[in-house]
Amino acid sequence: MAFIQYFARIQIESGSRKLIAAELARLGVQRPLVVSDKGVATAGVLDLALSATEEAASWPRFLDVPPNPTVASSEAALAAYRREGCDGFVAIGGGSVIDCAKGAALMLTHEGPLEPLLARRGGMDKIGPIAPIMAVSTISGTGTEIGRGAGLTFANGEKGVFLSHHLIPRVAICDPDLTRSAPTRLKVGSGIDALGHAIEAYLSPAFNPPADAIALDAIRRLVKYLPRSVADADDDEARFELMMGTLEAAMGMWKGLGTAHALSMPFDDLGLHHGTLVGVLMPEALRFVLPVVSDERRANLAQALGCEPTAIPASLAALNAQIGLPAGLSAMGVTEDSLERAGAIAAGTPFNHTAARTGTAEDYTAIARAAFN
Amino acid sequence: MAFIQYFARIQIESGSRKLIAAELARLGVQRPLVVSDKGVATAGVLDLALSATEEAASWPRFLDVPPNPTVASSEAALAAYRREGCDGFVAIGGGSVIDCAKGAALMLTHEGPLEPLLARRGGMDKIGPIAPIMAVSTISGTGTEIGRGAGLTFANGEKGVFLSHHLIPRVAICDPDLTRSAPTRLKVGSGIDALGHAIEAYLSPAFNPPADAIALDAIRRLVKYLPRSVADADDDEARFELMMGTLEAAMGMWKGLGTAHALSMPFDDLGLHHGTLVGVLMPEALRFVLPVVSDERRANLAQALGCEPTAIPASLAALNAQIGLPAGLSAMGVTEDSLERAGAIAAGTPFNHTAARTGTAEDYTAIARAAFN
Repeated sequence: MAFIQYFARIQIESGSRKLIAAELARLGVQRPLVVSDKGVATAGVLDLALSATEEAASWPRFLDVPPNPTVASSEAALAAYRREGCDGFVAIGGGSVIDCAKGAALMLTHEGPLEPLLARRGGMDKIGPIAPIMAVSTISGTGTEIGRGAGLTFANGEKGVFLSHHLIPRVAICDPDLTRSAPTRLKVGSGIDALGHAIEAYLSPAFNPPADAIALDAIRRLVKYLPRSVADADDDEARFELMMGTLEAAMGMWKGLGTAHALSMPFDDLGLHHGTLVGVLMPEALRFVLPVVSDERRANLAQALGCEPTAIPASLAALNAQIGLPAGLSAMGVTEDSLERAGAIAAGTPFNHTAARTGTAEDYTAIARAAFN
Repeated sequence: MAFIQYFARIQIESGSRKLIAAELARLGVQRPLVVSDKGVATAGVLDLALSATEEAASWPRFLDVPPNPTVASSEAALAAYRREGCDGFVAIGGGSVIDCAKGAALMLTHEGPLEPLLARRGGMDKIGPIAPIMAVSTISGTGTEIGRGAGLTFANGEKGVFLSHHLIPRVAICDPDLTRSAPTRLKVGSGIDALGHAIEAYLSPAFNPPADAIALDAIRRLVKYLPRSVADADDDEARFELMMGTLEAAMGMWKGLGTAHALSMPFDDLGLHHGTLVGVLMPEALRFVLPVVSDERRANLAQALGCEPTAIPASLAALNAQIGLPAGLSAMGVTEDSLERAGAIAAGTPFNHTAARTGTAEDYTAIARAAFN
């Protein structure tokens, strides 16, 4: 059965941070907990985000979100929420901040251990309504501000993924003014991750024409505006369009992802930057996948990328070089002896099942080897 | 501010009617009122829709929906719902059936007169949650199965429009098997209406890239599969793709509509078929609108239609002739002396404000004259 669903409320525009109070009122939230991290606060972005909202001065803040959010950080945020008598979350940051808030909001209405709620344990149907979350993006890329997923690392070091439409923030405030001062390396990694979302979603075989149409538009937008936005942080048009493109990529992602995301997982666990990994892996992942993709779909993808159908992997490699991504896994610190285990893990991920071409452990190890240098 | 929202849960596939029981269980509905009309019942489509759902034999039915649904018909449906102790609606039919159910579900949770809830009276913010509705489409076109609008005629003959995301059915069952036996004239009128939704939405100046991408894809799908589906009711692929195209058109419609929909309104009030009117008016509406549309947008529209940018109105006129639409308003029974009043009404509709080019009463009368024969 083909199942198609969209859920998201997005306020996108330079200055949309001015709508924070009105959108919270619409949600009936009177005393939100602000969740953010020290990087966002130190860069002045937290203050900028709240500068138009007078009442924000009295809102309690939780700023202890680590770069990769943990179950413990969500527990700490929830403790602050309860202590302060809050009735909703305003998550201001990138994917880790938003996912930390999702974890806290989930725990608030779901008592007991989190493990049974994990996607791989069939938890999707066990997740019900959570506390209201407003997501205010300070980086363009992850899409979790409109997405149904949340990733949290457990105490044993394992990363767990939760999936439910209840985890979609009730509103996303997407104000490109807030992404201006993000560090270039993060901009590049998050932007190329979004391009990976769009390409792998478009190639995923699930039937979902609206998602296909949106994903292709995301690809067009991202290949045009990601390099411009990286080259010039003050290019307002590029920053805005990059934000729009990453949102569209996240909408397309409902179809499922593929090979590069599968193969990024074992390296994610090493603490490497997820989006950067996806970008580095994408050209070789596509060399593996494209032979089984229909001519029509390959032609549409090539047109969106602005290249010939035979030149898709090369065109992505050239884009990587242009925006300054590492040349291969080796340059990111991956060692050759880890590739075999990585292939085995990748073949076992859910992304391998939504990919255009399913791979064996050996296939994935071969892709990783090809992307090594 | 650019505001983007999507809400819809769609089960689309030949045979998706088999999901009716499971989807109702998901909504917690145990005793739905089946809302349909005598045409759908007589054609055997109501039985076909419910044939896979054993428990449906015991569900009460309300079949008195008129071709243009009235406030009175919604009141009657609501009375049946209360009398039978129901807890949700299963609307099986075209736009009129689904809108009748929306009206009843709205009245159930909103006491007092309906007028203050009308869109033109600023009612959008006054509409809260309504009783759950499952929409089962038996015709491809209107899109109300995933749309936030409902149109009901009041006792004084005026058509009122309600708009709220609460009016979106909780799930749409889109099974192309159920549209096979729809009368050709209805298929043509509803299909061309959807093409009008997609074209006018794409040209509407609101900023909404995902809606633009979906609308363009709808246009591609509709110009290819509407003629095929009209020519051969047993062309399963065409019937399925037509259904998908009309759903995409309805998603695009969130941006707003334009000139042809504005000018159809005064003639709608005469009881003429809305979609047929939109199709007949579209070529001349576009001759008025296209001069102010950007080259890029015109080129994209032409590409989706499969014609040259200068040939857009002519290509739509040719499509109309191919699928057997009337040649002009005159052939539909409109009289020349009504065109002036029609222009004045059209200029006052909300569609005139979301159109790519705003028109005066004189502009609209001129368009109607050009589309007369």
